[in-house]
Amino acid sequence: MGNFIGHVYPGLFLFLYGLHQTIVVSKAALFNTSLLYPSSPSRGQGRWALLWKISYGGLLKTVTGSILIVFEISCVPGGLVLMNRDMPPRFMHPKEWQHLTMFILLTLSGCVDIVSKNLLPQRSVVLELGVRMLAFHVLLLLLLSHTQGTAGVELQVHALLVLVVFLLVLVLTAELWAPDTVHLWLMETFLFLMMGSWLMQAGFILFKPVSSYPWQDDDISDIMFVTTFFCWHVMVNASCLLGIYGFSVFWYRCDSAGLKATGFREAPYHTSPPGPLYKLLQEEDPSEKDDQALLLEASSR
Amino acid sequence: MGNFIGHVYPGLFLFLYGLHQTIVVSKAALFNTSLLYPSSPSRGQGRWALLWKISYGGLLKTVTGSILIVFEISCVPGGLVLMNRDMPPRFMHPKEWQHLTMFILLTLSGCVDIVSKNLLPQRSVVLELGVRMLAFHVLLLLLLSHTQGTAGVELQVHALLVLVVFLLVLVLTAELWAPDTVHLWLMETFLFLMMGSWLMQAGFILFKPVSSYPWQDDDISDIMFVTTFFCWHVMVNASCLLGIYGFSVFWYRCDSAGLKATGFREAPYHTSPPGPLYKLLQEEDPSEKDDQALLLEASSR
Amino acid sequence: MGNFIGHVYPGLFLFLYGLHQTIVVSKAALFNTSLLYPSSPSRGQGRWALLWKISYGGLLKTVTGSILIVFEISCVPGGLVLMNRDMPPRFMHPKEWQHLTMFILLTLSGCVDIVSKNLLPQRSVVLELGVRMLAFHVLLLLLLSHTQGTAGVELQVHALLVLVVFLLVLVLTAELWAPDTVHLWLMETFLFLMMGSWLMQAGFILFKPVSSYPWQDDDISDIMFVTTFFCWHVMVNASCLLGIYGFSVFWYRCDSAGLKATGFREAPYHTSPPGPLYKLLQEEDPSEKDDQALLLEASSR
Amino acid sequence: MGNFIGHVYPGLFLFLYGLHQTIVVSKAALFNTSLLYPSSPSRGQGRWALLWKISYGGLLKTVTGSILIVFEISCVPGGLVLMNRDMPPRFMHPKEWQHLTMFILLTLSGCVDIVSKNLLPQRSVVLELGVRMLAFHVLLLLLLSHTQGTAGVELQVHALLVLVVFLLVLVLTAELWAPDTVHLWLMETFLFLMMGSWLMQAGFILFKPVSSYPWQDDDISDIMFVTTFFCWHVMVNASCLLGIYGFSVFWYRCDSAGLKATGFREAPYHTSPPGPLYKLLQEEDPSEKDDQALLLEASSR
Repeated sequence: MGNFIGHVYPGLFLFLYGLHQTIVVSKAALFNTSLLYPSSPSRGQGRWALLWKISYGGLLKTVTGSILIVFEISCVPGGLVLMNRDMPPRFMHPKEWQHLTMFILLTLSGCVDIVSKNLLPQRSVVLELGVRMLAFHVLLLLLLSHTQGTAGVELQVHALLVLVVFLLVLVLTAELWAPDTVHLWLMETFLFLMMGSWLMQAGFILFKPVSSYPWQDDDISDIMFVTTFFCWHVMVNASCLLGIYGFSVFWYRCDSAGLKATGFREAPYHTSPPGPLYKLLQEEDPSEKDDQALLLEASSR
Repeated sequence: MGNFIGHVYPGLFLFLYGLHQTIVVSKAALFNTSLLYPSSPSRGQGRWALLWKISYGGLLKTVTGSILIVFEISCVPGGLVLMNRDMPPRFMHPKEWQHLTMFILLTLSGCVDIVSKNLLPQRSVVLELGVRMLAFHVLLLLLLSHTQGTAGVELQVHALLVLVVFLLVLVLTAELWAPDTVHLWLMETFLFLMMGSWLMQAGFILFKPVSSYPWQDDDISDIMFVTTFFCWHVMVNASCLLGIYGFSVFWYRCDSAGLKATGFREAPYHTSPPGPLYKLLQEEDPSEKDDQALLLEASSR
Repeated sequence: MGNFIGHVYPGLFLFLYGLHQTIVVSKAALFNTSLLYPSSPSRGQGRWALLWKISYGGLLKTVTGSILIVFEISCVPGGLVLMNRDMPPRFMHPKEWQHLTMFILLTLSGCVDIVSKNLLPQRSVVLELGVRMLAFHVLLLLLLSHTQGTAGVELQVHALLVLVVFLLVLVLTAELWAPDTVHLWLMETFLFLMMGSWLMQAGFILFKPVSSYPWQDDDISDIMFVTTFFCWHVMVNASCLLGIYGFSVFWYRCDSAGLKATGFREAPYHTSPPGPLYKLLQEEDPSEKDDQALLLEASSR
Repeated sequence: MGNFIGHVYPGLFLFLYGLHQTIVVSKAALFNTSLLYPSSPSRGQGRWALLWKISYGGLLKTVTGSILIVFEISCVPGGLVLMNRDMPPRFMHPKEWQHLTMFILLTLSGCVDIVSKNLLPQRSVVLELGVRMLAFHVLLLLLLSHTQGTAGVELQVHALLVLVVFLLVLVLTAELWAPDTVHLWLMETFLFLMMGSWLMQAGFILFKPVSSYPWQDDDISDIMFVTTFFCWHVMVNASCLLGIYGFSVFWYRCDSAGLKATGFREAPYHTSPPGPLYKLLQEEDPSEKDDQALLLEASSR
């Protein structure tokens, strides 16, 4: 998958996951709820109850991983063999085997999520975080190995991706000790957004340049512009994160104003009811008091 | 702005900001007040009240950033275009676009400060610190990209600047977790002083050597003296920081002695009244007790 | 010992130690007991009491280290001399002397364990951890020195080993501050497993390739597959760790179900009785509550 | 001072300082007293009181630094000028100016110690630690600059010294946050011992090889033996540290046994009385309980 599609599709997947995560983290920061144990809607207590409790994240990872594995294997003409039959035998398809390793890790991580959330008698957060951390350590190693033997623009593009994954590994390792910290989740979300958008950009830079002329490896100007574009991605993604958070604040402010007008009746269109608002405001975490205060003011208007 | 002016003016700006910050931190360490929520003078409760609450730091950043953006764009002969019209098209002005990115970041960081301090219902310190941390991460990346393709004296000069910015990034990241620590603020202030003074020195070394002969890239002696000069900057800036702090202690000691003589009447020439002195001394933070004890002794004479 | 045996045997030793450690850590995590002060079986209070208290780990290290030292010295034809008698004299057997240093460290670390556990009036955990940490720091230095002058496949194989040892050094240093943390012990165990299995793999890659043709240093494909194999080792070892832990849970669940059926009589075939189960469940550490809950459910069935 | 004397004398100074520090830390660990505020003997309350309170450490640093400055300046034939009078002018004596910078830092650090301990109304530990940390940061930079342009054995020798100083900088930075931790002081002491003994060894390797034939830069065996010797230094210095600590324990055990025999009369030959022993044993810090228990057992025999 060292082609345009192989960079843009995973990038899009990661970017959309990052956007979804942004909304989740915004809501958690706004209502000061736990990110690991989101208050379940507790809707459908009857025979469909199990359906609401399935780990959709884990299922998505498993399905995506499986599809990518099948796709990777079927893409190689002549089959994905490890060695050819020459004498001396040579290893074949090194990049494809590394991609396959990444996708197997994604699938396994999804399976562990499902097992932990749905099959174990009680969810094991440490197990989920540990497996995810390990998966990203392996991803970092594979990316470093991928960049061996590249130079110029390709090296610069991949070095910046490696930087993002390295910071992600650090954040995920720190999460193992402080699993429910908003700071770390915000950083993780931002790094997922960066990884996704930069992977898409990498596809365009390496395989479909906008000017339709390839970037020049021996031109220092082109190599400098790779970093400049990366910095613009940082700015755009940070604005994106901030915009979604701001919109969440605005949305829930309107919402809670509406709630107040109707006497705090439980609005039926809530997929996830905000919980006892005033109780939360009294138990507030100091680092979150700004957001809370925002809500308080909104409620008291 | 790869010239003398382009190094000395930003350096001077950073150095003056560092000096201002030194005075602020000294005062905060002396009176054991918060650095993030300085006790406002609460002067002008009337119609000019708003004027006293404006975030001057944010305003300064925004104005400086905007001026630098205009200056950068107007400086390039033929306009700051991204690509020329040749076939194949080439990227133009890589360094200028990176400078522009830095200045946009400065402007944005200033805007966020103003929004957080003046427009939001309640100030969000996490937002301000987060944006500042992100800005310095981007600055570090841009500086690293700037040093690609340089060698000898220029590389050594920029490597030391990168070192300072890297330490600054570490300190700013740590501040996100411990935003109100005097140790971290002192380090940050010292690194701002270093960055400013070294940027000025870089201008002199690279573009206006004192001996009027350029430094030699192939002379190991010249490259070693770059580091030696950097170490002298460290010593001078540390003395500067210490001197200002010592002067502050001396100044407030005289001041409080004067206060005592006049029976603790509020001195009208105070721009920022020191607050209830004895109350502070009883609530003292252990790490600050030395400074407090100094004051106590001064007061009790 | 730069041969097949010299890589596979130490690797096997480390891997078996890792497996043993996995079982110990699983049991400690399951019953929430301390890893540093395991509840001794207190069997044999009579004249054989001393025999049960001997530090078998320390004894094993000392004996293994001593055997390896003797083996290393006897293996060198002409004796392990430091310098030859030529003019100018040259250092002889650099690799052998470095191996000898490693084995002396292993022996010393074992001696310190025995002294601390059996001879001192009271065990000094700090001393044991400190000596072990120091031993791994020295091991890291020696491995780095070993890789000097290598290239291609050999460099890649050793670089990955150095990475594992570097992470191990970080974990061991962290353990000095938090000696009784399950997270750190799990990481340490996993890294020991990795070190052992990768050392064995290194023996096969460098000296006995499965295809009976040596790996090619100038083939980027071979170098990439070294990393790919390493990633597969990560996956297999993580599964191994998880499998042993899962089996421990299953084993003790059956066990405690059996205990319940027989009215909690102390089962005589226990080598290490699980202790008061319900008391543990009430004092549970939050990070371990999932495992505990598993047991609770098992017991209450 | 790029000669034998210039490496061995500073090494000896650092090693002796490390030995002295070992004794101080051993005593502090044994009696669980503070390392920063040692209980002063309070002997000589009369007119010689001031003499006992002088900061001998600071005085030693100032005097040693001043002597080294004078020696460095007087050693250079033709005087230590910054530039020669040729056209174009060239920088002169780069190494000597860097040595001078180090010695000035030592002198300044000593002055700050004296000012803090004897002239300020109350001692400022933060100031002392901060200046010392800064001094070692500068030392690290200067050492890195010193190693530029070297290769082979000289590079390896200096790289290991840089490693020691880098770890020392990390430990000193950590001490700023946790200034009274025995773990950190032990590490610092060990690193000072390493720095001293390795500097002496460096003098012998580079300028006076024992075999009287110079080491060969192009011989990989010689370069590997530099690391091997370094590892032996680690082992010897660790044994040294452990031996002194063990001897201290033994000494104070005998001492307290003697005290008990004489009915706890204050022994007149104590330079630093051990203080109320049993009180200490009740207030014991968990990490130190092993050492305490040793003493307790000794006393109760």
